[in-house]
Amino acid sequence: MPRYKLTIEYDGTPFVGWQRQADALSVQEAVETAIQRLSGEDLRIQTAGRTDAGVHARGQVAHVDLERQWEPFTVLQALNFHLKPHPIAILACEIVDPAFEARFSATARHYRYLILNRRARPALEANKVWHVAVPLDADAMQAAAQTILGRHDFTTFRSAQCQARSPIRTLDRFDVRREGDMIAIEVSARSFLHHQVRSMVGSLKLVGEGKWSAGDFRAALDARDRTRCGAMAPAAGLYLMAVDYP
Amino acid sequence: MPRYKLTIEYDGTPFVGWQRQADALSVQEAVETAIQRLSGEDLRIQTAGRTDAGVHARGQVAHVDLERQWEPFTVLQALNFHLKPHPIAILACEIVDPAFEARFSATARHYRYLILNRRARPALEANKVWHVAVPLDADAMQAAAQTILGRHDFTTFRSAQCQARSPIRTLDRFDVRREGDMIAIEVSARSFLHHQVRSMVGSLKLVGEGKWSAGDFRAALDARDRTRCGAMAPAAGLYLMAVDYP
Repeated sequence: MPRYKLTIEYDGTPFVGWQRQADALSVQEAVETAIQRLSGEDLRIQTAGRTDAGVHARGQVAHVDLERQWEPFTVLQALNFHLKPHPIAILACEIVDPAFEARFSATARHYRYLILNRRARPALEANKVWHVAVPLDADAMQAAAQTILGRHDFTTFRSAQCQARSPIRTLDRFDVRREGDMIAIEVSARSFLHHQVRSMVGSLKLVGEGKWSAGDFRAALDARDRTRCGAMAPAAGLYLMAVDYP
Repeated sequence: MPRYKLTIEYDGTPFVGWQRQADALSVQEAVETAIQRLSGEDLRIQTAGRTDAGVHARGQVAHVDLERQWEPFTVLQALNFHLKPHPIAILACEIVDPAFEARFSATARHYRYLILNRRARPALEANKVWHVAVPLDADAMQAAAQTILGRHDFTTFRSAQCQARSPIRTLDRFDVRREGDMIAIEVSARSFLHHQVRSMVGSLKLVGEGKWSAGDFRAALDARDRTRCGAMAPAAGLYLMAVDYP
């Protein structure tokens, strides 16, 4: 029974998130339905990270075991055919070692967060960015972001519903750069807590507005107190870009 | 009666194009309706270039004369309010000299054409790119594009319905560059013929596939014969980026 690794792009706008839910369509259900149309099997696929409703992916990774040894290219083409008209595309399909686990084998996860920072709301990027109309100081945000790199207790930036046993994580990259009206934030770690990126970005926006100093941002982390977190950034600006494996 | 210059972004997907039509919604009608809600005036606005159905704009320019001397910022905010929920945003509004004409004062128009060149159809860029699944040689496309810069008779790359008196235009920029799966084509000229960019890009794709040489591309131009044009590139990949004025 071969194990397939799937690399998946999706527009999260019309979905309730990655994970299956009884009452509305998830990315997981759309992909599993496509697999069923290909192979007739009613399978559950495992993913590197469950994205929330409205969050996008350019490089989500999942694995699935199929009864039959299909050519990876056949699986790729068939799934993309059956996924129409959903905004989900399988970018790559390969047969991997049966020990490969999309979630547990991952060595790094890379997210991007996009802020459209201008007066007018987005027309071309509707549902694809966080629209912030007040001017943000991206250099100040970058300086503050660097103060929380490394291994910390991220309780402040963790959803109250987070089910991870430990709030300790190691933040490897947290870079903020402006290109015209767009501020792109790149965040990398081996793994993240629930809502961690959106919580950190929401707090970093306060630095961009001049309401918080870099010291305030670091102090919020050190407080290990969820009530010290800024208002969480919306889902629409968040992209799971890539997941690394050994 | 002050004249206002508007800089406009829109997602062309849901519109029949810029120009008003009796049976379906155009960008022009949506903007004119927003103006009517602001000022009560039923006006016609003039534009730098009428984009076709499905073509997008990041920097379309239009001008309109309003009875009353509103603050430009008030006009900007009010139009954006009244344009909701359409994917149209007024990016800038300024009072200009009454001699300013969005169409006739323009000294250059800049278009971008995006090709998503990969096997899988677009999920995040649906309706925003031309999806070409066969591999394209962007370097060959760039080399061929350079052979038609300058002043020429562009009859080959002109719609049969084009109403311009002369088929002579001067192409100032035609650059092709690849970034990962995306091929971006930048095209600039003082003015363009109808369907000129999409006709040139459609023919350039044949070069990218290896079906045409750079010489074939140039020979198609020199033939001044519409039947020598490759299949026209679709509207979804085209963006009016900016219009220059003195």
